[in-house]
Amino acid sequence: MATRADAGEVGALLHRFNTEFGDPSPGAKTLTRRVAELIQRGDPSIFLLAGPRDIGVAVVRFREALFGDGLTGYLEELYVVSDRRREGHGRELMETAMRLARERGATTMELGTAIEDTAARGLFERLGFSNLEKRGDPSSQMLFYERSL
Amino acid sequence: MATRADAGEVGALLHRFNTEFGDPSPGAKTLTRRVAELIQRGDPSIFLLAGPRDIGVAVVRFREALFGDGLTGYLEELYVVSDRRREGHGRELMETAMRLARERGATTMELGTAIEDTAARGLFERLGFSNLEKRGDPSSQMLFYERSL
Repeated sequence: MATRADAGEVGALLHRFNTEFGDPSPGAKTLTRRVAELIQRGDPSIFLLAGPRDIGVAVVRFREALFGDGLTGYLEELYVVSDRRREGHGRELMETAMRLARERGATTMELGTAIEDTAARGLFERLGFSNLEKRGDPSSQMLFYERSL
Repeated sequence: MATRADAGEVGALLHRFNTEFGDPSPGAKTLTRRVAELIQRGDPSIFLLAGPRDIGVAVVRFREALFGDGLTGYLEELYVVSDRRREGHGRELMETAMRLARERGATTMELGTAIEDTAARGLFERLGFSNLEKRGDPSSQMLFYERSL
């Protein structure tokens, strides 16, 4: 679990993530400052690093659950650098994220991912995640939408 | 915007929502208690009611944004009772939700919805929401996954 001292590594990995997938990035420095600020402020997030260095990162955010007590976790980011994939780091990050989320009182975890990212989807499905609103009914697939405000 | 005094109406509508779609519900009473607790505690959520009574509800949650300052909004629930649909209440709830979220400092809003819920998807798409990671590229549709912990 990353502490404030690890914010630089988290920021650098998030920047590499955005860059690799052609997403706009505010840059490693700005991301490092933002991560440090969130950790400092006690924001209820988990920033995980795959050790020893520069391998991968996962970010889990939390909100109070609406339909029960406890928390709902949201996996906001999961990234393993390209030359260290298929070594189990993604699975290890996810298993740690789920364990720590459970320990904090989360009863559900959510995430969004691209339909074409079959590697990530395979991992999530092997770990028990489902994108079906009704178990077994593929017509009830859930879509993730967003817009700028 | 619902206050603590409106928690009963919010709870009742969330219970009707779950019941209509065959989802498990902890019951209107438990939901009312939970909503009242979140409002009381100052949880940064917005609970909206379509007036005057028993027409519809929207719930927006917030987290600190990761890739910028400000907040990210998440539309957790949107429901209009069956005999009051197609009257514009959903659109009004959404427009109010987006305006209030913007006023609170949110720069993005996210939501998940079922692929088969074409009415809701049409509304979200008319309001500018997209489920494509890359603009215009349907192979980059984003899926919403979840699992219990």
